[in-house]
Amino acid sequence: MRQIFEDELNELHVRFSEMGMMVNEAIYKSVRSFIDHDKNLAREVIDNDRQVNKREVDLEKRSFEMIALQQPVTSDLRMIVTVMKASSDLERMGDHAVSIAKSTIRVKGNRRVPAIEKDIAEMSDSVKKMVEEVLDAYVKEDEKRAIKIANEDSGINEYSDRIYKACIAEMQHDPSTVVGSMDYLFVASYLERIGDYVTNICEWIVYLKTGDIIELNSNVDETM
Amino acid sequence: MRQIFEDELNELHVRFSEMGMMVNEAIYKSVRSFIDHDKNLAREVIDNDRQVNKREVDLEKRSFEMIALQQPVTSDLRMIVTVMKASSDLERMGDHAVSIAKSTIRVKGNRRVPAIEKDIAEMSDSVKKMVEEVLDAYVKEDEKRAIKIANEDSGINEYSDRIYKACIAEMQHDPSTVVGSMDYLFVASYLERIGDYVTNICEWIVYLKTGDIIELNSNVDETM
Repeated sequence: MRQIFEDELNELHVRFSEMGMMVNEAIYKSVRSFIDHDKNLAREVIDNDRQVNKREVDLEKRSFEMIALQQPVTSDLRMIVTVMKASSDLERMGDHAVSIAKSTIRVKGNRRVPAIEKDIAEMSDSVKKMVEEVLDAYVKEDEKRAIKIANEDSGINEYSDRIYKACIAEMQHDPSTVVGSMDYLFVASYLERIGDYVTNICEWIVYLKTGDIIELNSNVDETM
Repeated sequence: MRQIFEDELNELHVRFSEMGMMVNEAIYKSVRSFIDHDKNLAREVIDNDRQVNKREVDLEKRSFEMIALQQPVTSDLRMIVTVMKASSDLERMGDHAVSIAKSTIRVKGNRRVPAIEKDIAEMSDSVKKMVEEVLDAYVKEDEKRAIKIANEDSGINEYSDRIYKACIAEMQHDPSTVVGSMDYLFVASYLERIGDYVTNICEWIVYLKTGDIIELNSNVDETM
């Protein structure tokens, strides 16, 4: 019985990590498509989101069945609850990648501001790093690292502040850039929200190890 | 044993509904504070958020203990899983009310646009209605109504679009309104996100009744 449970738990971890990698790729590709004005790549992100959603349903079903059939307690139960909760966060992160991809398709060749695009690209690199780190911290059940990763979210918010200020300056200087600057702001806000979801997953990793629910970063100081 | 479980489950429902009402009040007060430039009310919302967070932790602990000690299966288990998931959504909704309250405190008497403020007030009334309805649908486990409520989210997105367009027009017309218009956009985006979380809770209500995880509204067509 225990061996079956261990095998199922292991499979659950693997499938969760795979979902994380799918989402990470979607985020990366969506920002690439936005910066490069690559509508085909944007469409690919939108199409692939179905796989991410399917995986969430799959994880949910497996988790539920494991609880119902194996009736785990304490840390085993906590492990499954964590997957149940964190897979919802991953799914929402995938939705935001789709939002970025949809922005790409909407954009109609507005005037581009290289300095802002550079910040968006760097912001997205930081988000990508956070996503990769949180998946690793999850696999290693490393709650100390999870707390550290959540702290990195303030770096994401700094990018957001900078992009916000640059866009405001652009719009004040030349009203014809208002629509284009708003596109930049949208993409930055989606990335910021993805960072918030990474912070949620960090909280679940702490929960996994300690059983305590803590708020690592309140999402409330964000710009958008 | 069954009676103890029923009593605990009932207590869980009551405490979840109470949390929902706390969050609903926070949203309402935060928008009131923004429209009325009432910084005291905004501070009240920020202070009270601690109670919302505490309640989430309380619900989490109760749910976990009920699963571990009573080992529920099928619909009983699903009921508890729903509380576990939906309480996270309520907590995030509370965070966004805090974000609106913080916007209120930041605002420095920018020029006001009554037409946009009217739309924000109406948008917040619609969100409030959605929150109240979803709590009622939860109590009644009414998945058909949950699907209907999720559809109302498109109405929220319409407000968002309208506020977006009005703000863009303001900014293009008079660059000195850029910062003030952005404040309006922020508040609208927080309200929109609260609507997204209501949709999540609608999805959990469907799950509660059917065991199926469905995506009622992909969050991906939103403006911000």
